[in-house]
Amino acid sequence: MASSDKNYHMTPEEFRQFGRAVIDWIADYYEKVESYPVLSQVKPGDVRKTLPENPPEKGESVDKMLKDVEQFLMPGITHWQSPNFFAYFPANASGPAILGDLLSSGLAVQGMIWATSPACTELETLVLDWLVEMLDLPRKFKSDSTGGGVIQDTASSASLCAVLAARERTSNFQVNAKGGNGKLVAYTSTQGHSSIEKAVKIAGIGKDNLRLIEVDEKFALQPAALEARIKEDLKNGLTPFFVCATVGTTSSHALDPLKEIGEICQRYQLWLHVDAAMAGTAALCPEFRFIHQGLEYADSYCFNPHKWMFTNFDCDCFYVADRNILIKTLSVLPEYLKNKATESGAVIDYRDWHIPMGRRFRSLKPWFVIRHYGIEGLQYLIRKHVQMAQNFKQWVEADPRFEIVAPVPLNLICFRHKGGDKFNEKLLEKLNNSGELYLSHTKLNDQYVIRMCIAQTHTEERHVRTAWQKIQQTATALENE
Amino acid sequence: MASSDKNYHMTPEEFRQFGRAVIDWIADYYEKVESYPVLSQVKPGDVRKTLPENPPEKGESVDKMLKDVEQFLMPGITHWQSPNFFAYFPANASGPAILGDLLSSGLAVQGMIWATSPACTELETLVLDWLVEMLDLPRKFKSDSTGGGVIQDTASSASLCAVLAARERTSNFQVNAKGGNGKLVAYTSTQGHSSIEKAVKIAGIGKDNLRLIEVDEKFALQPAALEARIKEDLKNGLTPFFVCATVGTTSSHALDPLKEIGEICQRYQLWLHVDAAMAGTAALCPEFRFIHQGLEYADSYCFNPHKWMFTNFDCDCFYVADRNILIKTLSVLPEYLKNKATESGAVIDYRDWHIPMGRRFRSLKPWFVIRHYGIEGLQYLIRKHVQMAQNFKQWVEADPRFEIVAPVPLNLICFRHKGGDKFNEKLLEKLNNSGELYLSHTKLNDQYVIRMCIAQTHTEERHVRTAWQKIQQTATALENE
Repeated sequence: MASSDKNYHMTPEEFRQFGRAVIDWIADYYEKVESYPVLSQVKPGDVRKTLPENPPEKGESVDKMLKDVEQFLMPGITHWQSPNFFAYFPANASGPAILGDLLSSGLAVQGMIWATSPACTELETLVLDWLVEMLDLPRKFKSDSTGGGVIQDTASSASLCAVLAARERTSNFQVNAKGGNGKLVAYTSTQGHSSIEKAVKIAGIGKDNLRLIEVDEKFALQPAALEARIKEDLKNGLTPFFVCATVGTTSSHALDPLKEIGEICQRYQLWLHVDAAMAGTAALCPEFRFIHQGLEYADSYCFNPHKWMFTNFDCDCFYVADRNILIKTLSVLPEYLKNKATESGAVIDYRDWHIPMGRRFRSLKPWFVIRHYGIEGLQYLIRKHVQMAQNFKQWVEADPRFEIVAPVPLNLICFRHKGGDKFNEKLLEKLNNSGELYLSHTKLNDQYVIRMCIAQTHTEERHVRTAWQKIQQTATALENE
Repeated sequence: MASSDKNYHMTPEEFRQFGRAVIDWIADYYEKVESYPVLSQVKPGDVRKTLPENPPEKGESVDKMLKDVEQFLMPGITHWQSPNFFAYFPANASGPAILGDLLSSGLAVQGMIWATSPACTELETLVLDWLVEMLDLPRKFKSDSTGGGVIQDTASSASLCAVLAARERTSNFQVNAKGGNGKLVAYTSTQGHSSIEKAVKIAGIGKDNLRLIEVDEKFALQPAALEARIKEDLKNGLTPFFVCATVGTTSSHALDPLKEIGEICQRYQLWLHVDAAMAGTAALCPEFRFIHQGLEYADSYCFNPHKWMFTNFDCDCFYVADRNILIKTLSVLPEYLKNKATESGAVIDYRDWHIPMGRRFRSLKPWFVIRHYGIEGLQYLIRKHVQMAQNFKQWVEADPRFEIVAPVPLNLICFRHKGGDKFNEKLLEKLNNSGELYLSHTKLNDQYVIRMCIAQTHTEERHVRTAWQKIQQTATALENE
């Protein structure tokens, strides 16, 4: 601290010194991340009680803070970046993403409108256009067409924006003007993400107006059931307006049949949003693009590079086929933001593409990632993850005590021991408490199921093999209890 | 890149090397930031056309990316961190904030629920409690009371959450269940932030049900007008439910009378949200806490350390007096997130406190800032900013060609040349095009007004003095045209 000259700011020299210390700390962390218990073992309140209850009157040094991170925070960290992290979704980070984000923090520009930092907006548009090409998405999602893409924080926020744009398209912007009337109806499958329920609540649609459509034996939405429900709602004087189809459900990675759903949406003029939060990244590889079959029917689409594309949270890519509807839905233009570029219509003002107004230079992250790995490197790694998952699936199938309970199109395996729910619950608890790996669970057909998701940045074949051995050994021990 | 071993990831050694390069790049940037034109001079499309239209097939080196940043992106950057940036709001960054955020990127944990990284949740709760103490906010906002705080991305999102919680409290959670009925009515002043309009649209309340209440000669909301409007709405069978009062309006930093507004809210059982996005930070200093007089009436409150507290975007601190209402409004609990800690009720799951589900370890930023500066350093700097602004105000008053058009309680000066709207527009354009400083504008009483906001991290007396000289000289030149 330069408190001697009563300025208190970190000097550039101090920034260089401490910056190196933090960079080294992170590099060290990744070199030893495997040695930590993956799942934090602390109890509620354990972390807080080690920290001072009151803020410091005088400044302290970064060295001291780093020591405190090590001593007091690390025990409360669950190591998402461990190669033995197989729970939830991977949220895989990478060196280039961390550095791209660091650059964003350093420049610290606001990209709320084009005029407040043109590079922030134009790079984002470019990177989102790149990704249309890289994933072979419908051309209408490109910025030189009728649509375009934007980086949102999460798929939850993207779904909300899709619900809002759909609401306004159907109501002819009357809900924005006069409020809801309780008659709009939305649809997703029983396996759709919880954020859809959250979105319909937020948007004033109401949970009672969200239909959770039955799924087939693969846990994919049944189009016939969807259409039947739409007809029934219409008959009852309600107004169907929105369908969320999922490419890779959270529970089991089920793939909803986009083409059949899309045809229904077209027939009844419903907005089709496609949520491919984790699975979307797989489309980097041509052989996995079957997951997007029928995507040409979608009015909006999102996938999260922060789930499986080595891009630190937060980075959800949200695309719309008609940007004007989205903009008209979310735009508010106060005097203090008026400017010639906006008035000319020649620029994108991303604040009208999402909930917040302010925004950081978020595209630097995926830009660094794509440039560091190249399409070649990303494809190589995605293929490797899927291959490891397929191997794991075969190992499970080869052990008669276990069963695979859902199709494994990509990198998520849902399996269970045949010993019943309680057994599987105990098995999971024992595995996670060992600290050697971390798995999560879900329920499918009302049965407790273990989820193993394979896509952490530094996960290698040996980690997956060890995990499976540990699962087998732990099951054996439990069987003999 | 370690592409030789077909792994493609950045090695720890490469991360150290490139990490230092980025740290040095940022340090260099801050050393020369004053030499750039503050406002980017590019035209729409200028940045994009310098960049490759297609993503790279093969990976590239970070050195190359940094060169591209320098050559192709920097011309499109408006330098928010320049000491000559006086536009909009400061969004002042700092060394400790950048490093805290870097650490967050490195750890790359998901803090959606307590169980997914307890330290992420517990440090956030602690820092938010610290800030209650540091700003002397009502005790009900502390986590050991009925309320609590959470870091949101922006005040826009915080306002939306306030609107939603208010909507549910008034409707007894019936809008969440059944959707809106078009009868709920919200209130803010004509000077309230545009995000309130955005929030009532998103929440299905409808813009027609947002009343913009008249302001007094200081641009502060008139309580009598508010009450009259509430009575009229009640008479018309509508349901008033929400008032947003502003501490430091965006246009002119007007201070709404919280006590009078709060008494009205109490009388009619309306939710009072207080938006102190930029101004709130001033309450670090006891002598500026008059801005929060009456805050004890608030049901929710937010201020943005990312505006004036040296904390990189995004960091909005949002407090509620009754956390149960907020949680009940936003909570959705799918099977795959169920866990013992949540069931025990002993922990906070912040995903139920905002729109997104995922969240990064955001509290490291303000934690690093508070610990680096200490309360002492932060108070020193806020006082200095306010003092510089008050000096500037006196200089404007001393030049008979200019007038101050709104009170200057803190660090934002609204002024204009007496030569009329066109003259002021031209003056602002000429100043901003000079690249020597950057100011923005607003309209007050239908007049075009120049806004000068003084709070950038590295702004010193000399920058403010030079800015005023430049304004005077430019005005003289324009007068003689």
